[in-house]
Amino acid sequence: MRTNIGLAAPAALASRYARVRALSVALAAPLSDADASVQSMDDASPAKWHLAHTTWFFETFVLRDFVPGYRLFDDRWPYLFNSYYEAEGARHARPRRGMLTRPSLAQICDWRAAVDDALLAALPGLSPEAEALVQLGCHHEEQHQELLLTDILHLLAQNPLEPALWPGDPKVPVAMPGPPGWIAGRAGEAEAGCDYPSGATAFAFDCEGPRHRVLLHPHAIADRTVNNGEWAAFIADGGYRNPALWLSDGWAWVQREGVTAPLYWRQDDGVWTRFGLDGRRPADPAAPVTHVSFFEADAYASWAGARLPTEFEWEAAAAAHDPAGGNQLDGAGPAEPRPSAGGPAFFGDVWEWTGSAYRPYPGFRAAEGAVGEYNGKFMSGQFVLRGGSCATPRGHVRASYRNFFYPHQRWQFTGVRLARDL
Amino acid sequence: MRTNIGLAAPAALASRYARVRALSVALAAPLSDADASVQSMDDASPAKWHLAHTTWFFETFVLRDFVPGYRLFDDRWPYLFNSYYEAEGARHARPRRGMLTRPSLAQICDWRAAVDDALLAALPGLSPEAEALVQLGCHHEEQHQELLLTDILHLLAQNPLEPALWPGDPKVPVAMPGPPGWIAGRAGEAEAGCDYPSGATAFAFDCEGPRHRVLLHPHAIADRTVNNGEWAAFIADGGYRNPALWLSDGWAWVQREGVTAPLYWRQDDGVWTRFGLDGRRPADPAAPVTHVSFFEADAYASWAGARLPTEFEWEAAAAAHDPAGGNQLDGAGPAEPRPSAGGPAFFGDVWEWTGSAYRPYPGFRAAEGAVGEYNGKFMSGQFVLRGGSCATPRGHVRASYRNFFYPHQRWQFTGVRLARDL
Amino acid sequence: MRTNIGLAAPAALASRYARVRALSVALAAPLSDADASVQSMDDASPAKWHLAHTTWFFETFVLRDFVPGYRLFDDRWPYLFNSYYEAEGARHARPRRGMLTRPSLAQICDWRAAVDDALLAALPGLSPEAEALVQLGCHHEEQHQELLLTDILHLLAQNPLEPALWPGDPKVPVAMPGPPGWIAGRAGEAEAGCDYPSGATAFAFDCEGPRHRVLLHPHAIADRTVNNGEWAAFIADGGYRNPALWLSDGWAWVQREGVTAPLYWRQDDGVWTRFGLDGRRPADPAAPVTHVSFFEADAYASWAGARLPTEFEWEAAAAAHDPAGGNQLDGAGPAEPRPSAGGPAFFGDVWEWTGSAYRPYPGFRAAEGAVGEYNGKFMSGQFVLRGGSCATPRGHVRASYRNFFYPHQRWQFTGVRLARDL
Amino acid sequence: MRTNIGLAAPAALASRYARVRALSVALAAPLSDADASVQSMDDASPAKWHLAHTTWFFETFVLRDFVPGYRLFDDRWPYLFNSYYEAEGARHARPRRGMLTRPSLAQICDWRAAVDDALLAALPGLSPEAEALVQLGCHHEEQHQELLLTDILHLLAQNPLEPALWPGDPKVPVAMPGPPGWIAGRAGEAEAGCDYPSGATAFAFDCEGPRHRVLLHPHAIADRTVNNGEWAAFIADGGYRNPALWLSDGWAWVQREGVTAPLYWRQDDGVWTRFGLDGRRPADPAAPVTHVSFFEADAYASWAGARLPTEFEWEAAAAAHDPAGGNQLDGAGPAEPRPSAGGPAFFGDVWEWTGSAYRPYPGFRAAEGAVGEYNGKFMSGQFVLRGGSCATPRGHVRASYRNFFYPHQRWQFTGVRLARDL
Repeated sequence: MRTNIGLAAPAALASRYARVRALSVALAAPLSDADASVQSMDDASPAKWHLAHTTWFFETFVLRDFVPGYRLFDDRWPYLFNSYYEAEGARHARPRRGMLTRPSLAQICDWRAAVDDALLAALPGLSPEAEALVQLGCHHEEQHQELLLTDILHLLAQNPLEPALWPGDPKVPVAMPGPPGWIAGRAGEAEAGCDYPSGATAFAFDCEGPRHRVLLHPHAIADRTVNNGEWAAFIADGGYRNPALWLSDGWAWVQREGVTAPLYWRQDDGVWTRFGLDGRRPADPAAPVTHVSFFEADAYASWAGARLPTEFEWEAAAAAHDPAGGNQLDGAGPAEPRPSAGGPAFFGDVWEWTGSAYRPYPGFRAAEGAVGEYNGKFMSGQFVLRGGSCATPRGHVRASYRNFFYPHQRWQFTGVRLARDL
Repeated sequence: MRTNIGLAAPAALASRYARVRALSVALAAPLSDADASVQSMDDASPAKWHLAHTTWFFETFVLRDFVPGYRLFDDRWPYLFNSYYEAEGARHARPRRGMLTRPSLAQICDWRAAVDDALLAALPGLSPEAEALVQLGCHHEEQHQELLLTDILHLLAQNPLEPALWPGDPKVPVAMPGPPGWIAGRAGEAEAGCDYPSGATAFAFDCEGPRHRVLLHPHAIADRTVNNGEWAAFIADGGYRNPALWLSDGWAWVQREGVTAPLYWRQDDGVWTRFGLDGRRPADPAAPVTHVSFFEADAYASWAGARLPTEFEWEAAAAAHDPAGGNQLDGAGPAEPRPSAGGPAFFGDVWEWTGSAYRPYPGFRAAEGAVGEYNGKFMSGQFVLRGGSCATPRGHVRASYRNFFYPHQRWQFTGVRLARDL
Repeated sequence: MRTNIGLAAPAALASRYARVRALSVALAAPLSDADASVQSMDDASPAKWHLAHTTWFFETFVLRDFVPGYRLFDDRWPYLFNSYYEAEGARHARPRRGMLTRPSLAQICDWRAAVDDALLAALPGLSPEAEALVQLGCHHEEQHQELLLTDILHLLAQNPLEPALWPGDPKVPVAMPGPPGWIAGRAGEAEAGCDYPSGATAFAFDCEGPRHRVLLHPHAIADRTVNNGEWAAFIADGGYRNPALWLSDGWAWVQREGVTAPLYWRQDDGVWTRFGLDGRRPADPAAPVTHVSFFEADAYASWAGARLPTEFEWEAAAAAHDPAGGNQLDGAGPAEPRPSAGGPAFFGDVWEWTGSAYRPYPGFRAAEGAVGEYNGKFMSGQFVLRGGSCATPRGHVRASYRNFFYPHQRWQFTGVRLARDL
Repeated sequence: MRTNIGLAAPAALASRYARVRALSVALAAPLSDADASVQSMDDASPAKWHLAHTTWFFETFVLRDFVPGYRLFDDRWPYLFNSYYEAEGARHARPRRGMLTRPSLAQICDWRAAVDDALLAALPGLSPEAEALVQLGCHHEEQHQELLLTDILHLLAQNPLEPALWPGDPKVPVAMPGPPGWIAGRAGEAEAGCDYPSGATAFAFDCEGPRHRVLLHPHAIADRTVNNGEWAAFIADGGYRNPALWLSDGWAWVQREGVTAPLYWRQDDGVWTRFGLDGRRPADPAAPVTHVSFFEADAYASWAGARLPTEFEWEAAAAAHDPAGGNQLDGAGPAEPRPSAGGPAFFGDVWEWTGSAYRPYPGFRAAEGAVGEYNGKFMSGQFVLRGGSCATPRGHVRASYRNFFYPHQRWQFTGVRLARDL
């Protein structure tokens, strides 16, 4: 992992480490041992597994590899909590993660505390290479914080009782906004990506680089994402029943899965409701639509006479905005997209599907060592999403940040921004 | 459900009810909330589900239907904990039982206590029909006690850590017994089954009747079941690699599943070990083999130049033995087959596969009402097992008792007794 | 294969061999090379495969094993056309039989002719053991003649054009018969099965023996099978929508497969039609219903307040009837059940599902050698059918004849006769 | 379909139509009725289906829509032979194409002749719009000619007899070439794609446009594709066993399918052989490797320390070469990659996987009407291939031609060219 970290002092890293680690535990606080142990589908992992796997990352790549004399907390656990690092040897099969009722949630929390103690003690003496791995581990854990929330949401949605994890905010009614405005995008050559190491405090994943020139064609991009009210109109107009709107793979998916609305939506007495971490509630027409797949995003864009932006069109438009702004995860209150307060917004609420396949940039090289399996090996069959969501820890994303999922997946907080050719 | 119960007094029934209900809770005592919530395969159910479903049975068929003014503990739960009673309406899909992290184990235990209070309070005033349903419910719960143990064993076996649920007994070495003795079976007409109502304190399930005449052909039956040592010889002789020994469906199953030994067996440094509720231990050569399928039982019998007994041959031989004897579940110590103490034994240790397909007896009629779905509708594709196991609550079985499973299933404590034509 | 053949002279066997072999070729006459090569489902085989496999049987077990100096027609073909004889070594996987576009239908017919020439030339000098295999091969080929017809029917039914293989007979309208009469069955001990070798000209498969005593309970059996008109009433009464009528496995099958009528039935403008080898035509109300599964047969019997007969009840009732009578295959005209001419009938038209699982008789021993894999290894999970059908070569069946299929299968000419307890 | 055709005269189109249609029939000449009817996997279609579907295209979009009074040859057939045009209504399911033993190959040939007669008679009076559809239909049929060959190859490969469709050429031994040369690619802005309508005789599919500017980064591209000898070295070096070389989806595919070599390869006595339309023969080390998936191509490139070219790098390099040159299909002799004659070559032999996902160009709009479903709806999950193969009709491809397949597919003649960053 080549990163461009340049922390001023270990104290800053220690502080960041402690904050990140504490947030994970806070997010898991409302969960029972059973909530934290069950796996609701192959794509998802138990919350306990996320808590353990992020701990395994620090224990393996930092404590084991850089701290002389460190002894593993339990030498049988790395086998259980390695995710996909082939270089780290055999591992428990992903779809079997929900079979691990032992160790318990409490035992995992004990492990977390022990690793935190050891790492914070070791931090002042770590080499820059090890510091970079701690930094990477923090970003890695932030990614798992978001997955923890979306996975637990998926699990709770399987329960006919539809339990709410968090109490909902009292909703302030928001007027249904008018149609989105269009921002004329830049045409011609531009720069994209993040070229590390460049110094200072910046961090980027290997797949965001190298920074390179791209060519933009004349286009415009919407100043907000599609909302629930607009999506309901798409449904009412037969959007899910008209094959002409869909990619061939998308139409096959709609037919096979019987898809008729975003994930977690249901029509109760003629009213569209959605399920969230705050339970089942009416789908606020003014709030960004979420839990839609790339296939749905693309079909919606066709219906609207538009298209999805490329990842570089998005990046050019977002570059001027504050990546730490908008509705992102602060650890307080349920993660849920909120009605727009007005004005162009590019960060938070929902990840935005782009029309760009997730592929390497010119000159891309994966990081070396086991952490080199982090991003590059996933570069087939997935699409790029940009912008972060209400479940993304605030401070985690930036304009060059590339998230990626398969086109049928929609259990993340995924939404849609339109673009069009000029 | 036509039963031949004739309890002397409600007090006896109350006592029995209390004992049965307490044993379920005791069996679940070593389980964490997660242990009790996870479903390890479609055939198995979470322990929590067993605790809840048996409670649902009493609440639905007794309290709701016979106790005026009774209010359901939670009117959303019957949907979750109905097993397969079509007459009781829609229900949560069986393979989704493991998604129910809520209600928690503790909440289910609260429900159990509330139902127990209500039922014991109502018992003195119940009609004979309702009393019969209480009686049936107790037998029903005993069946689920066994399933709870075999399902939790299956779950723990999926965990690479192989946690032991119960401490094991110190093993007293037992000499490897000689070959089984052969008991000459009766030939000619005989009586089989249980013809209720016959009076007194007896109970039987509808599928055990009517009692009727059967015709036995000259045969002999072994005086004990096959043991681990004999099974190891079968393996060593290539038993799992020789298609000539197997039924066609059985051979397809062996090939498809890659079966090479009983479930939970593993060869560690040349020694066969097995996993049980007391963890992984060497497979005691003198103990009855268990966790074998009908297909394996049939193949072993072919290899041994014998066959499986019919269910009527077994019943005729077992009739003279004490159905409450042998190694059955008392609620103390781990359920595990034990080396024979010598002498013919027909009850306990392992359920014995018979060569009889599970089909209705002449004149069979299913019980009326919802409980009529209890047995009769399963009479295709399954084989009869007899005799109870180490996980069967002592007192539950009798000579006429018919258990039934599909020929590939083996997560129950299932074993083999040989027979042969004379 | 222990058989009780005792042919008077090789000439009789030669004549029989020639007739059987000629019928297969005649049945395949309307087929194109493509018709004969395509496999429509895993359960079915291409017609060409049937023609080849029956030839392989004679070439392998008679010519190769008993005729010195015989050279295989093509030594690569046994691999292709062995069906399931493990003892004969590796073989082409059953679901891949439809991949064999070469050798062509014409080449297979050439092979047939060459094997016929060699076998008829060798026949006068064959040992009794080899003669018995020729006899067995003829019965084996008759079984495949029926399968050839039912498999080609299944293939043609997949084609939206629904081509007719044979021109249909002009239908003579037949009055809808009244309800079936009931024949009081014998109670008490009886004999069943066929005990070979007994001498003379009789033949039986190993699974029909040994002849043994059985115990019949008081019952009555219908004097005809259920007809299409009665089945339409079952459908109209919601028979396929009422779970209370169905075995649990059967109801799961109905739900999973979306079953609403017998195979090949369709409602066109309110009229039930069926597809047969003579194309799509109205389902004659007076003709026996066919292409129903055991699950459907059992559900119908429940609906009618009756049950299926056991195989021994059937055999006792059929013993007095001519097994070569009724509507069986003569090689002329399309195989199709026909309205009853009146009077009790037990043979022909449709195979009749019994309530008996297909299991070995007391004292059963499979034949020795490769042909011992013929019957015994299929004795799990299947049900016995009796009586032969319109596609069974006349002369093939007898009162003791046991056919067997899985309870969900229905592409054979399978139907229903009712019985009831007295 | 917006095309840039501008044919000088109908006579030229008639001539082209006749040539294309004749080649299809010639390619099918060695096939039996069965060969032409069987479907070997869901991805493939029967040869007969290709012959029929291409005819359906002309009958539907030209004769039916533009020729007054034209009567369909058989009005039941459009349902059978529509491929995926949702706008044309319901159609026979793709995986069921192999069930259509009727109409026969001969009947399809009759249909072809009748449509050819009608179309050639109507051609002089057709509107430009209809002419454009004839032109499109010819290109469409050329695509199916290639599929016909690759599908029949796949079918024959399923047959253990491995029949050869065509006699092989006597092979002239060719010296194993040295390593590929590297051509320095252009960096900076360039033009790519084909911008129609531009006039004259050119034709392009909608997905090739619009012609637009692209930005190339410094790179080099190999002057030939990878050959069998080099691939054997990759295998010998453990290429298929080292997860570090593979994309994550690719490694999962290797594990799931047990892939150890290109499709149709087998090691016989230590020698790599491949199966082709000329039967099984040694894999010529000097010939281009073929029948490899994108996953294999990408892994090979990783192993070789290189990468795949982008589609625009390829197009820039190929633009100077003759698209009708090299080893392409002329209708004479078996389609098979041949050892290079030396010198840079970009067309023929094997389709070359690029690293570019198949996505729309800036400003892309699908053609209008039913033929608009031709390309655009497949733009997810697939990768672009360039250059044509030995099975591509000569004259069909051009530098801007975009073929596309899923990354696991490899039954086409697909190969690998390397590129690298400079």
